[in-house]
Amino acid sequence: MAPNLASYFQAVDANADAFIHRLAEAVAIPSVSAEDARRPDVVKMGLFLKAQLEALGAKMEARPLGKQPGKEHLELPPAIIGRYPAKKDESKRTILVYGHYDVQPANLSDGWRTEPFKLSVDDKGRMYGRGSTDDKGPVLGWVNAIEAHQKAGVDFPVNLLMCFEGMEEYGSEGLDDFIIAECKPGKFFADADAVCISDNYWLGTEKPCLTYGLRGCSYYSVEISGPGQDLHSGVFGGTAQEPMTDLMRVMSTLVDGDGKILISGIKELVAPLTKEEQSLYKDIAFTMDNLYESLGSKTAIFPDKESTLMARWRYPSLSLHGIEGAFSAPGAKTVIPAKVTGKFSIRTVPNMEPAEVDKLVYAHVTTAFAALHSKNTLNCHLQHSGKWWVASPKHWNFTAAAKAVESVWHTQPDLTREGGSIPVTLTFEQATGKNVLLLPMGSSTDAAHSVNEKLDRRNYVEGIKLLGAYLHYVAEEPMDGA
Amino acid sequence: MAPNLASYFQAVDANADAFIHRLAEAVAIPSVSAEDARRPDVVKMGLFLKAQLEALGAKMEARPLGKQPGKEHLELPPAIIGRYPAKKDESKRTILVYGHYDVQPANLSDGWRTEPFKLSVDDKGRMYGRGSTDDKGPVLGWVNAIEAHQKAGVDFPVNLLMCFEGMEEYGSEGLDDFIIAECKPGKFFADADAVCISDNYWLGTEKPCLTYGLRGCSYYSVEISGPGQDLHSGVFGGTAQEPMTDLMRVMSTLVDGDGKILISGIKELVAPLTKEEQSLYKDIAFTMDNLYESLGSKTAIFPDKESTLMARWRYPSLSLHGIEGAFSAPGAKTVIPAKVTGKFSIRTVPNMEPAEVDKLVYAHVTTAFAALHSKNTLNCHLQHSGKWWVASPKHWNFTAAAKAVESVWHTQPDLTREGGSIPVTLTFEQATGKNVLLLPMGSSTDAAHSVNEKLDRRNYVEGIKLLGAYLHYVAEEPMDGA
Ligand SMILES: [Zn+2]
Ligand SMILES: [Zn+2]
Repeated sequence: MAPNLASYFQAVDANADAFIHRLAEAVAIPSVSAEDARRPDVVKMGLFLKAQLEALGAKMEARPLGKQPGKEHLELPPAIIGRYPAKKDESKRTILVYGHYDVQPANLSDGWRTEPFKLSVDDKGRMYGRGSTDDKGPVLGWVNAIEAHQKAGVDFPVNLLMCFEGMEEYGSEGLDDFIIAECKPGKFFADADAVCISDNYWLGTEKPCLTYGLRGCSYYSVEISGPGQDLHSGVFGGTAQEPMTDLMRVMSTLVDGDGKILISGIKELVAPLTKEEQSLYKDIAFTMDNLYESLGSKTAIFPDKESTLMARWRYPSLSLHGIEGAFSAPGAKTVIPAKVTGKFSIRTVPNMEPAEVDKLVYAHVTTAFAALHSKNTLNCHLQHSGKWWVASPKHWNFTAAAKAVESVWHTQPDLTREGGSIPVTLTFEQATGKNVLLLPMGSSTDAAHSVNEKLDRRNYVEGIKLLGAYLHYVAEEPMDGA
Repeated sequence: MAPNLASYFQAVDANADAFIHRLAEAVAIPSVSAEDARRPDVVKMGLFLKAQLEALGAKMEARPLGKQPGKEHLELPPAIIGRYPAKKDESKRTILVYGHYDVQPANLSDGWRTEPFKLSVDDKGRMYGRGSTDDKGPVLGWVNAIEAHQKAGVDFPVNLLMCFEGMEEYGSEGLDDFIIAECKPGKFFADADAVCISDNYWLGTEKPCLTYGLRGCSYYSVEISGPGQDLHSGVFGGTAQEPMTDLMRVMSTLVDGDGKILISGIKELVAPLTKEEQSLYKDIAFTMDNLYESLGSKTAIFPDKESTLMARWRYPSLSLHGIEGAFSAPGAKTVIPAKVTGKFSIRTVPNMEPAEVDKLVYAHVTTAFAALHSKNTLNCHLQHSGKWWVASPKHWNFTAAAKAVESVWHTQPDLTREGGSIPVTLTFEQATGKNVLLLPMGSSTDAAHSVNEKLDRRNYVEGIKLLGAYLHYVAEEPMDGA
């Protein structure tokens, strides 16, 4: 174990109740970024965080991010950035950490068993409350780690740079440009040696993991239009070419029921599976029952863990999300919609270049539509795309994190990837040019974004130890892995 | 010309301004049946109608229809029924007429060029206002016809039974049972010899028509479900069988872009086209330009009038209306919907028995879904069905109407069918066992249900003449056609 870790761990345990109280204070601030009326609470939460860190001696700033695009009457909540210790110790590595202080909406009437904005700890140590695991617990983890070092009288092992945002649950408006600007030479984040993000979850409930990859996402619209306005199917059914008929036929050519993408050329863009990579999957702590539980059904495509994890992490997928412009309410309406827009997205993986994917998608959709010989009009376009991200898990940033997991949890972490995207990850990698690590605190059953979100007391307290230990091992890692 | 018609026509012309004033009074009452808050106005309109007819000596009743299903705090507007003359003349035929006094919603902000609930007559005699053509103009046509007979001192040629409802634009709640009950022996409508409905439109703008057929409609839901709740496509894309994928594939098997129904067995249910029927279409006053204008595009299936009219009137069609449960808003959402319900309907024609159609639909959908070998769950069901209706255009009811058209418009009417359904038509036919005639007043450009609804002054004034003339010719027709 790294020197001084034992007394740091003791200090964390000794102050656990105070740390939980701090989380309770944070959960009590309903910092819902998606609800305009809650904007003052989001700001309040950012300033709470700033004040807590200033009280511990950090140098903090609340940086304005401007007006909210599309809602210009609303000021975006500030980016809360900071440095600890306040004055840089040139002999130490500098780690940039990221988290968000806003939360998803929550109402008791959605099905919460406890008041969502009151931290409620049950007799099994489950701490329920909106933001407990996503992402107030992990953000306060850094605050608590600083305080526990002070209480233990242990020297803080690195220079910590902090970047906490208040719009993550609403698209991280304004953040990308801010990060890119602040990573430039001479700016606030310029000297980061590596990045650590704690805004994801263990794959299961028992085994910690380090995450080194995320899929990207390219989201498309296929618009088909014909008549000048919606038509009545009694009057026009059988005499007009209907955009919905064309759209159903085009959308049905994209993917089959077993998730196989039918767009030619996509498969060829995927990095081949090496023997070495293949061997990694069998040891991951994950079972098909985990999958069935999270699906709420047994409607899985693959019968085995390995294929399932590979399909989630390292192969692309295509999902049909819905249709805009068609009849979507309950009941019956005999409309022939004049213009319908199908929505689908492709989860991308190495080495799929987004521009290449776009080209294949447009070609496929255009060909499929042309085959219909329709008089209607097709318009296919990209709504947005975010690239996949894969880091090297052999970098000292990961090695340090793995040692920290062993010292706290007494087990080797699983090295995992994730199917979804956390766009800020790629932004940090590109802006800093440094290795980025995803170091989760919560577990797969924490119900982030859902009702009855919770964080287990154990994950919170051991998680605080983990963050501190990670910084200690970071300080010890040789430079050659950089 | 039938005796006395000339003086009746003169009385109509002499009182045209008063009749337009009556229509203006009616349009000023915003009797929108779909808006709860307007319910008192709907009732007011019903009572206005009752009072107008009572003032002319008719025996009127406002019959309660009970609470509105699903909105039990709301009383349905009454059926306004009546008899004129108040005492039956046993020597005369009895004609039952139907119309509705409620209207579609309308707001100036929808794009109306004039106040929708104020009748605005322009210099071309176009009378704009909600309900002008649908259906206040035609309903008041009967009132005006009675008054013009009195002004002209011409004996009213038939016993007129009236049935005016206030919920037509909201599904005719409660009316079917009422009609069936009142057509029983000894009840209000028991002695009707024929029925005349004026709630549809000319096929074009110049040529009057009599309508003798309507398509039916069978409306289906195809529900496909899998996961226990909506999933995130990043986490689950590629590992779970997605209900939307299955639904797109099932829906794409139902119909092709040229409207050809791909459900096997449907075609065989359709009554064959006889040479005699085929020859009728070429003379109908309708052009492809009429179609393009109403479509607002040239995305028609057929290049010629005959095929188009047959496709609209005498062949079935299948339209895909939309999907419930999928993402339907603007923008992008990376959801895998857990349960999606596709909606489609088939317009039915002779001799398609609805139960037979249901069976073929279920068999097709079940087979198409089985071919996917999906683990998801399918549930296909009928939402509602209304049968097609075809009357004999050789019945005296039609012969009389045709003579009336000739006396007023100096041309033979087109004999038309319609693609949509007017369910009350079939109800009247079945409840009375008598011939039902659809005798339109307005023209195809009146924009019923749309913004800037209007009725041409000419169609209103000549239409009043037409209704009266029809009753005179009804009185003269021999009994053998009955
Ligand atoms: Zn988060
Ligand atoms: Zn109507």
